Amino acid sequence: MEGAGEIWAYERQTPNLTIGLRVKEVLRHERSPYQELLVVDTVEFGRVLFLDDCIMFTEKDEFFYHEMITHVPLCAHPDPRSVLIVGGGDGGTLREVLKHRTVQRAVLCDIDERVTQATRDFFPTLATGLDDPRTEIRHEDAIPYTASQTGSFDVIIVDSTDPVGPAQGLFEEPFYRSLKEALRPGGIVVVQAESPLVFRNIVQRVVQGLRAVFPATSAYLGPTPTYPGGLWTYGAGLMEGDLMPRRHPRLETKYYTPAIHEAALLMPPFMDNLFR
Amino acid sequence: MEGAGEIWAYERQTPNLTIGLRVKEVLRHERSPYQELLVVDTVEFGRVLFLDDCIMFTEKDEFFYHEMITHVPLCAHPDPRSVLIVGGGDGGTLREVLKHRTVQRAVLCDIDERVTQATRDFFPTLATGLDDPRTEIRHEDAIPYTASQTGSFDVIIVDSTDPVGPAQGLFEEPFYRSLKEALRPGGIVVVQAESPLVFRNIVQRVVQGLRAVFPATSAYLGPTPTYPGGLWTYGAGLMEGDLMPRRHPRLETKYYTPAIHEAALLMPPFMDNLFR
Repeated sequence: MEGAGEIWAYERQTPNLTIGLRVKEVLRHERSPYQELLVVDTVEFGRVLFLDDCIMFTEKDEFFYHEMITHVPLCAHPDPRSVLIVGGGDGGTLREVLKHRTVQRAVLCDIDERVTQATRDFFPTLATGLDDPRTEIRHEDAIPYTASQTGSFDVIIVDSTDPVGPAQGLFEEPFYRSLKEALRPGGIVVVQAESPLVFRNIVQRVVQGLRAVFPATSAYLGPTPTYPGGLWTYGAGLMEGDLMPRRHPRLETKYYTPAIHEAALLMPPFMDNLFR
Repeated sequence: MEGAGEIWAYERQTPNLTIGLRVKEVLRHERSPYQELLVVDTVEFGRVLFLDDCIMFTEKDEFFYHEMITHVPLCAHPDPRSVLIVGGGDGGTLREVLKHRTVQRAVLCDIDERVTQATRDFFPTLATGLDDPRTEIRHEDAIPYTASQTGSFDVIIVDSTDPVGPAQGLFEEPFYRSLKEALRPGGIVVVQAESPLVFRNIVQRVVQGLRAVFPATSAYLGPTPTYPGGLWTYGAGLMEGDLMPRRHPRLETKYYTPAIHEAALLMPPFMDNLFR
């Protein structure tokens, strides 16, 4: 298929679906204590981070995911001051969170220090928030950390890897209960909830788990060109209300706008079936 | 990468980006007079049609593309009676066009009869409109056909392959002029305009071509999980007005709704840059 002498990096997105990116250079390939970490420079999508053989982000399209997982909950909250990011050690979500001037404290809790180091070494455009005075980086297990933080956060963003390996517990109901307890009144939790097209069962499980725990829930969709199925679900648990934009701060973004925020909440007919 | 004894079908979506689908069975593989045609049954996406090594559609996700290329112009038009589909020999767009009761005549003009035959043989869910009494199928070159049809159509949908090979002329300004001449007053043309992420230059060329010819133009976006970049641009040329929904017919759809129609017209910041 590919030409002689070419280097390609593949993700087997499901057992039956593969994406391949032509590689200019392998920048790092190591086993951290938690996962296999690969940084490559690709022709089509710029530099790319793989964890356990899955694409976490590419420089070219990461803005879709990081903007949508961040600005929807932060603009739905009337006054987000304290934000927790679970996972997200690459710094992309943190960068977006810190665009909000209301935010006084942003805690990044990712168990794997090597992911953050990879950003420091290879992804300057994702590293901009790591040394911000509002940032607190904790390289520890988010499950006990979250359980210890009763009533601490206005918004919690679960920017995790897939529900296999280190992130498995982040998709389970006991963790959702901790998230709820860690919220301040009026708080909002958003979790990355996988592809509605190729991981229907995970989307359903997340939504059902959130529904079992939170007084109100919501979900929205956004494009993710290099994730399986090209379209991603974000699930939300709320203490009250909904995810409609309540604030319209001036944000420098490539995809997010208040109108796109509202549009992302529209559930197409095929998604309604998914939630039943 | 893949396991022993497995069959995979790949599309090299760009020289530097590949998608692979695991195949259960190869159903047809032939050279038509115009292109190479492959029909496979895949594990992840059901049956898939490839033309010249490019995925045209998969059973599982074709609804995104076919609904969006059809219902946006047909609902933006106040009374679409006569519709021309250029390309689209697979019948998917035709199926959607015929959901509109206003439509009295739907002409499908695709040069390659073998594509339509593949639908008849392997894709019953796309074939539903082929024998409709309102349908007129013409297996001929759409360029002279369109040039001969002055003032004939309310909506023209250019559901073409990529701008290499047989479809090249369908992306050029002389053809856009024929499209304009073939419209009735108040008519609308929509053309598939490729990926804003990996084919920026084609998107720009289409939009500039339409602008050079039509009194008004517009563009919108929709998800396309198995097309390169996961997100697709549709370009529109109009004799007047815009693409906002003017009719809200009851349509059985999986993705399209009037609210999603309006949302698709919102141009994210990164697209605005693309049009400048």
